[in-house]
Amino acid sequence: MRVILCGFGVVGQSLVKLLESRADNLYSAFGLKPRIVGVVDSGGGVADTAGLDSSALVSAKKRGSVSAYAGGRPGMAGAELVEDTEADVLIETTSSNYKDAEPGMSHITAAMRRKMHVVSVNKGPLALAFPSLMELAKYNSVSLRFSGTVGGGTPILDYAKNSLRGERIESFRGILNGTTNYILTNMAGGMSFDAALGDARSRGYVEADESLDLDGLDAAAKLVILANWIMGMKVTMPDIKCTGIRDISESDIKRAASKKSAIKLVAVCDDDLYVAPQDVRVDDPLCVNGTLNGVSVVSEHSGTQTIIGRGAGGTETASSIIRDLIDIRRDMMRQ
Amino acid sequence: MRVILCGFGVVGQSLVKLLESRADNLYSAFGLKPRIVGVVDSGGGVADTAGLDSSALVSAKKRGSVSAYAGGRPGMAGAELVEDTEADVLIETTSSNYKDAEPGMSHITAAMRRKMHVVSVNKGPLALAFPSLMELAKYNSVSLRFSGTVGGGTPILDYAKNSLRGERIESFRGILNGTTNYILTNMAGGMSFDAALGDARSRGYVEADESLDLDGLDAAAKLVILANWIMGMKVTMPDIKCTGIRDISESDIKRAASKKSAIKLVAVCDDDLYVAPQDVRVDDPLCVNGTLNGVSVVSEHSGTQTIIGRGAGGTETASSIIRDLIDIRRDMMRQ
Repeated sequence: MRVILCGFGVVGQSLVKLLESRADNLYSAFGLKPRIVGVVDSGGGVADTAGLDSSALVSAKKRGSVSAYAGGRPGMAGAELVEDTEADVLIETTSSNYKDAEPGMSHITAAMRRKMHVVSVNKGPLALAFPSLMELAKYNSVSLRFSGTVGGGTPILDYAKNSLRGERIESFRGILNGTTNYILTNMAGGMSFDAALGDARSRGYVEADESLDLDGLDAAAKLVILANWIMGMKVTMPDIKCTGIRDISESDIKRAASKKSAIKLVAVCDDDLYVAPQDVRVDDPLCVNGTLNGVSVVSEHSGTQTIIGRGAGGTETASSIIRDLIDIRRDMMRQ
Repeated sequence: MRVILCGFGVVGQSLVKLLESRADNLYSAFGLKPRIVGVVDSGGGVADTAGLDSSALVSAKKRGSVSAYAGGRPGMAGAELVEDTEADVLIETTSSNYKDAEPGMSHITAAMRRKMHVVSVNKGPLALAFPSLMELAKYNSVSLRFSGTVGGGTPILDYAKNSLRGERIESFRGILNGTTNYILTNMAGGMSFDAALGDARSRGYVEADESLDLDGLDAAAKLVILANWIMGMKVTMPDIKCTGIRDISESDIKRAASKKSAIKLVAVCDDDLYVAPQDVRVDDPLCVNGTLNGVSVVSEHSGTQTIIGRGAGGTETASSIIRDLIDIRRDMMRQ
């Protein structure tokens, strides 16, 4: 399986390391033997049909860009790599952007037109164009997978779709952004908003564009993906009513605590689709703390079920990409 | 798909109702059209290759036994029904018994020898003989499924096995018995053990044989099933060290609370396999209250993940049987 990698940040680097350390097991248990034939980052790219070496890629990146790899091409763009490289799968890990979803959107659409399967951990293209991307994938007879976009290593998407087969899911709500949950948890512990935000920043939890976390855009993007995938809705970001956590005051936090509740940034899909701060009872399984994420699904016959896990992390997300590759290989074998 | 039903209590009755109310959807979405050709309970049985009517079965049961159905045979045993009826699937719902697992064990082994697939929500046979039952299923080329044995409607078994494919699960621990969790939750709220037990009894939460709940046998049986299924261990009930909740005192509860923890009956699979009361921190996602069940799975690369849901209930368990039937039908089509 020939793989192209767009983006080579924490997730991309974790992925190549994980693929290397788990190579024997992935091949023996799943017949999966990915060969990385091209990688691009913001500084340029490198391609080799014979396969690129993981350690050399990581050490090139340490020198600034994968284009420092022997034979690399500084300034090479992702679109160029996708157009010029023969591959079976594109793994898209560039940063999420909810304005125009670029450059991920162009990478993904170009790859699908070239009959590549796509694994995206970039939420931007899915948030802005989930329905049309799924159509494009279908039209080109390729898979579009995105397990890493929601819940990081926690297979929330997979769980809701597969473990509950035969069941109608009536609604769901989730705590989908670890950063705001961390801030709100600290505020419940007595910190001011500014102190809690400062602490989250100092730990590297906050996105460079803080609005993505604080104004609920990241949670809204995940809500779009879940609503499309689990509920079969055809919605995009503009369909989500979104309120962030900037206006939560210490007195709001205290009022919630006095009612044995905690304020959480909750993404809701019922008759309505929205992200907003809400009181969640502390004995509700969804009331998770710190950077944890959780989703509660209400099913028609199996009651309410909650799945909780770490929402992010390079290795966790890399692990979700490997799950997607296993599924893509299985799909390829069936054709 | 011709189905035999052994046992016709809450789960069996919920199942036939659910199959009827969901008939159109199950057929259109999954090609599943189960025909109930035989049912037996402790009072006798009834069989008809043309199919039995759900409402008439339920109303016969209201008169004491399904053998009151037109053409029913009082005194008919399950073994007889299994031997004399042509069917594709046995659904075993008689009560769990951890001494000799009868009559479920005989029903299941006879059915498999007759090349029937088996869905068991009866934990006894699996707890006492999981490894050999799986071998017998393999030898006879039939499926043995048991989604309803752990977590009721919550697809814990399925989740751990499928949603984490490609991942090594290192350990897990779970709160697997809703009754003891209900009692311990009430004790944490200030009730004495006796008062909490009385309350659980009055709500019908406690098994007729109270030892199954209070001494941890039910939790141990579920631990056996999880350890075999998720971890590939070949273990049975005697391998589980089991301590129940009878000796938990109010001062134990207070000591735990003073450490921001709660005492829970926890089933653990790490280097060791045991069921015992343990302190669980209240901010641990596994620290669920009331009758809820939960399992936390530690995976090699995706971190710790927790799944929480209602542990029991007729409709929930019936719903899990339908999931198993969907899978069996899919397996049958592939052959």
